[in-house]
Amino acid sequence: MSELSFQSPHRRYNPLRKQWVLVSPHRTQRPWQGEVNAASGFSDLHYDPTCYLCPGNERAGGAKTPVYEHVYVFDNDYAALLPDSPAPDTAGWPELLKAERERGLCRVLCFHPDHSLTLARMEVADIRRVVDAWVTQYGYLGRMHEINYVQIFENRGAMMGASNPHPHGQIWATEHIPDEPAAETAALAEYHQQHGSCLLCDYLKVEQEAGTRPNGRIVCENEGFLAVVPWWAVWPFETLVIAKSHLRSLHDFSEEQCSELADILKQLTTRYDNLFQTSFPYTMGFHQRPTDGHPHDEWHFHAHFYPPLLRSATVRKFMVGFEMLGMPQRDITPESAAERLRAVPAEHFTLKAA
Amino acid sequence: MSELSFQSPHRRYNPLRKQWVLVSPHRTQRPWQGEVNAASGFSDLHYDPTCYLCPGNERAGGAKTPVYEHVYVFDNDYAALLPDSPAPDTAGWPELLKAERERGLCRVLCFHPDHSLTLARMEVADIRRVVDAWVTQYGYLGRMHEINYVQIFENRGAMMGASNPHPHGQIWATEHIPDEPAAETAALAEYHQQHGSCLLCDYLKVEQEAGTRPNGRIVCENEGFLAVVPWWAVWPFETLVIAKSHLRSLHDFSEEQCSELADILKQLTTRYDNLFQTSFPYTMGFHQRPTDGHPHDEWHFHAHFYPPLLRSATVRKFMVGFEMLGMPQRDITPESAAERLRAVPAEHFTLKAA
Ligand SMILES: O=P(O)(O)O[C@H]1O[C@H](CO)[C@@H](O)[C@H](O)[C@H]1O
Ligand SMILES: O=P(O)(O)O[C@H]1O[C@H](CO)[C@@H](O)[C@H](O)[C@H]1O
Repeated sequence: MSELSFQSPHRRYNPLRKQWVLVSPHRTQRPWQGEVNAASGFSDLHYDPTCYLCPGNERAGGAKTPVYEHVYVFDNDYAALLPDSPAPDTAGWPELLKAERERGLCRVLCFHPDHSLTLARMEVADIRRVVDAWVTQYGYLGRMHEINYVQIFENRGAMMGASNPHPHGQIWATEHIPDEPAAETAALAEYHQQHGSCLLCDYLKVEQEAGTRPNGRIVCENEGFLAVVPWWAVWPFETLVIAKSHLRSLHDFSEEQCSELADILKQLTTRYDNLFQTSFPYTMGFHQRPTDGHPHDEWHFHAHFYPPLLRSATVRKFMVGFEMLGMPQRDITPESAAERLRAVPAEHFTLKAA
Repeated sequence: MSELSFQSPHRRYNPLRKQWVLVSPHRTQRPWQGEVNAASGFSDLHYDPTCYLCPGNERAGGAKTPVYEHVYVFDNDYAALLPDSPAPDTAGWPELLKAERERGLCRVLCFHPDHSLTLARMEVADIRRVVDAWVTQYGYLGRMHEINYVQIFENRGAMMGASNPHPHGQIWATEHIPDEPAAETAALAEYHQQHGSCLLCDYLKVEQEAGTRPNGRIVCENEGFLAVVPWWAVWPFETLVIAKSHLRSLHDFSEEQCSELADILKQLTTRYDNLFQTSFPYTMGFHQRPTDGHPHDEWHFHAHFYPPLLRSATVRKFMVGFEMLGMPQRDITPESAAERLRAVPAEHFTLKAA
């Protein structure tokens, strides 16, 4: 890679999303008189009597969270989707006011009874229990006849809109395939047809070749998964976790691959926390095969991590202005982000052996 | 409109962007233990000696901001785009690592020398001077041979990443048409070809017919412009300002239309501030005809306002999790947002006559 020409503004292409990102490597030198957020520390409360996700507590809707030991799944008391929504009545309306029924379910998955934990600070064996719950839920929900996509995700940290710090994720299952996975489905299918191979299998090889050399984008890996700052990353420290075999969804995972997924999540979130010595905020989630009954051999399981921090534990990247009205723009190269994530210790800064 | 069926989750289509949004009207009832931002008050400093946009002050790069009287334009000292960026050298690279040269310019436009002002609190005559500067800049930059799109925008408020509170906007001009206006160009052209009419001219009529009745989406208007919460709004109080005549760009504006644009911006930002009695944060900007030399008769000038606030001056909507990985989701109907913006006084709450 010719370093020099990548120190100037240029744009890069995301073949999975068919979108461009503007890369302006020199930009973090500008002064910052803007918003400074609070750093997100770790709670040392193992049980919070006011938290509705802690075992034994009452929830706002009046329901009670049982005394659970490992993971706990329930239907969101304020679900954005309902299984029996009626079709909107638009008969005789102008064509430009188009609406459709959207049925679905929203579930909450508590990762652990201990209020103070996060994925980064959990034992791999406990994360494995979370993975098992994801596998089960993907199966249950995906088999429902009116559900064609199961979106599993986690919002970590107040900066990312998590309304409660207790370790938990969400699962939103919908009648229609949402726009993001629908666009990826189209791109994966088109690539498959044109090349006779899988886009992400091919991309995996490209990243393995670039490796961990100064201009490589690999952050960490294990037998089953590779975590990279993708060539087309939008967020400063965005990563893509790619299955090393062509697994279409959680449904295709072996027990070993479930443990490997747990391990790579632990590795990656640990590096994130170590970067700014903080509880690193992010949105993460899986993209995988729609549950619409089609084989979708073009699909390749992966996770996206979208973390907002840019300069420090308190100064984030704002995707506003040009980014909202024009196109995404980033201030450091993906290669330098990967290098920084590789350079931090593999062990969590709060868990160092004495 | 059949009220009832729109009180349940449903999805709506955005024909300009060819995207869906999930509407979950009942959702704001959920409890909020998440992030609470600082409210954005108004500064009463007319001149801030530490502000690099105040007249006569030194900028971080070493340049000096002159003592300007009305508006002032300069090239961003930390520009994300440069006029002479080289093409990235990707000869022999894997096809999946695609990059392109992106040349361009980033300018800053100070709206007024008074540090304490915002569009909402400026005189219409002064906003008119800002409009004139936009017209001039769109012309200058658009005529440059390597510039094919001119993106004019404003980030208002720390919550929206503005790195300085002084009243100002930005202009980023690029060699390629960025993804957002490129997608709108394609949608407008397709509609034009299929219907023989302009998508936004047709949509304007639909909104004028729905009007300001309880289920209408109009917020305010004047001779030249209509401000609506569009049918497909993503942000809680998002608005679209549509030119009432088929103007392709600022280049087609009469002097009167320039004054009408100034007036509608004053009206709309005043209503925004009055909603939560705060300096309402937002990203706003214009979408208009690309400057690539093609006639683009399909293009219809409009402004997008993307404000983050949801519940109050301090609690925002987070576009995270399902929104980043699936599709945008909103918690109140566009119709109820429009009703609330219509219900506030037309006069700014800080400027009431004694
Ligand atoms: O140029 P500013 O105000 O320093 O920066 C702001 O606007 C830019 C253009 O929308 C964004 O790229 C930045 O993330 C944002 O903080
Ligand atoms: O469900 P929560 O954690 O209350 O809410 C959070 O996640 C949701 C799903 O991504 C978003 O719609 C909300 O804006 C966000 O605050």
